[in-house]
Amino acid sequence: MVLYVIGLGLCDEKDITVRGLEAVKRCSRIYLEAYTSILLVPKEQLEAFYGKEIVVADREMVETADAILAEADELDVAFLVVGDPFGATTHTDLQLRARALGIDVKVIHNASIMNAVGACGLQLYRYGEAISIVFFTETWRPDSFYDRIAANRRQGLHTLCLLDIKVKEPSLEALARGKTVYEPPRYMTVNTAIEQLFEVEEKRKEGAYGEDTLCVGVARIGSDDQKIVAGTMKELLEVDFGPPLHSLIVAGNTHVIEEEILSQFRQRP
Amino acid sequence: MVLYVIGLGLCDEKDITVRGLEAVKRCSRIYLEAYTSILLVPKEQLEAFYGKEIVVADREMVETADAILAEADELDVAFLVVGDPFGATTHTDLQLRARALGIDVKVIHNASIMNAVGACGLQLYRYGEAISIVFFTETWRPDSFYDRIAANRRQGLHTLCLLDIKVKEPSLEALARGKTVYEPPRYMTVNTAIEQLFEVEEKRKEGAYGEDTLCVGVARIGSDDQKIVAGTMKELLEVDFGPPLHSLIVAGNTHVIEEEILSQFRQRP
Repeated sequence: MVLYVIGLGLCDEKDITVRGLEAVKRCSRIYLEAYTSILLVPKEQLEAFYGKEIVVADREMVETADAILAEADELDVAFLVVGDPFGATTHTDLQLRARALGIDVKVIHNASIMNAVGACGLQLYRYGEAISIVFFTETWRPDSFYDRIAANRRQGLHTLCLLDIKVKEPSLEALARGKTVYEPPRYMTVNTAIEQLFEVEEKRKEGAYGEDTLCVGVARIGSDDQKIVAGTMKELLEVDFGPPLHSLIVAGNTHVIEEEILSQFRQRP
Repeated sequence: MVLYVIGLGLCDEKDITVRGLEAVKRCSRIYLEAYTSILLVPKEQLEAFYGKEIVVADREMVETADAILAEADELDVAFLVVGDPFGATTHTDLQLRARALGIDVKVIHNASIMNAVGACGLQLYRYGEAISIVFFTETWRPDSFYDRIAANRRQGLHTLCLLDIKVKEPSLEALARGKTVYEPPRYMTVNTAIEQLFEVEEKRKEGAYGEDTLCVGVARIGSDDQKIVAGTMKELLEVDFGPPLHSLIVAGNTHVIEEEILSQFRQRP
């Protein structure tokens, strides 16, 4: 009868809303999308909390959608998304598909990095366009984000940089030998993001940012061991932010109140 | 021992997270901030759900902070905020004040309009700076948002317009007679926002937007009777969005997938 698309929030099983938990308990099948973001706890911990089994949905399963939407005219199905359901386009695809099949879709919102990043002290309404930074490879080093950071900073706006995660990526080496083997998951650190930003500035040389540009690195936002450090790009390059997930904010112009909050997060020498 | 700053999400008592609800149950005093945003249900409904009394905190109480932080070194205190705790600067003020007093502050995130607006189909990472539109008065018609919409649209970016709410505003007429009487609450509609936008365009004449600019009006996002309508500014001027809260999005350039989703929300003639 209903496809529930439920945001899980940022950290663990208790970040689901009461409304979301009630919906999960009503559902016959539960899918967890775990390739655009991850919780800080394993799926088993969610299962124990819900008292129900969960199927981890990889990109292919979500994009084809058939298995997820099967029998959804007779049963309630939950599709769980880390953060808020509208973080990634694949989820809107799934919803369009469901509606085309006449399935009622209900969305249950939650926190996402797009708003929780307010915790770092830079005001949410002073962010420009958000960007994604992907892992550079030998042959693919996309840098279109550079112009966006530059445009944001020209207007004095902050830039949220979402950092790449690689989950269930097939090993190309194994594929070449005719086997499908998955690489271990990889999560971009603040440090790698800054290295890549420096590489692009080195190439473009337009001064969108530099070693002394104020940035904030954040890790595991919303959890008890979240880490927020403000400093120049060069300073943050040396900071160990610990386990995933990490994000980076390149500051634009800062106001007095923003500076007061940031000063709490300054790296002490 | 701890000041919990807890996001309530967007609609009703069940939008709190499980983690947030557990914290509320642990607290000796509970404050609800109800002047920068409101839930769609009265405070009594929250009280029944928590089984606890709630004190509504007005702007003055939050800004002075003394009552809220009293005895917080001995008791746990909850400060409830509609949406996510980092929507408004007053909350960061309160947190700074608490930390200065040596009080441990824990933030529990939730959905806010800043990310839930993704529900309208325009991709979150394609928004520029957000703006606030306040009720024009005889003598105060601030229009600095105009330049921000213009700058966003030059870059092809969408603009989220947060619409004014007036809660517990003293009546100037009564004040003049030496009495403090509060005006009934007022919430800006999408229609009023568009009227004000037209007035500013009429004055500035720089073509930042016009009658035919694509916009999306949203009301009561996240609730079962949420309303999302896409159309030109002129079309939306005539749409009845019903009870509060309303927000308006002025679209920048749209991509194919955005248009596909928006088409579901188009006003049928």
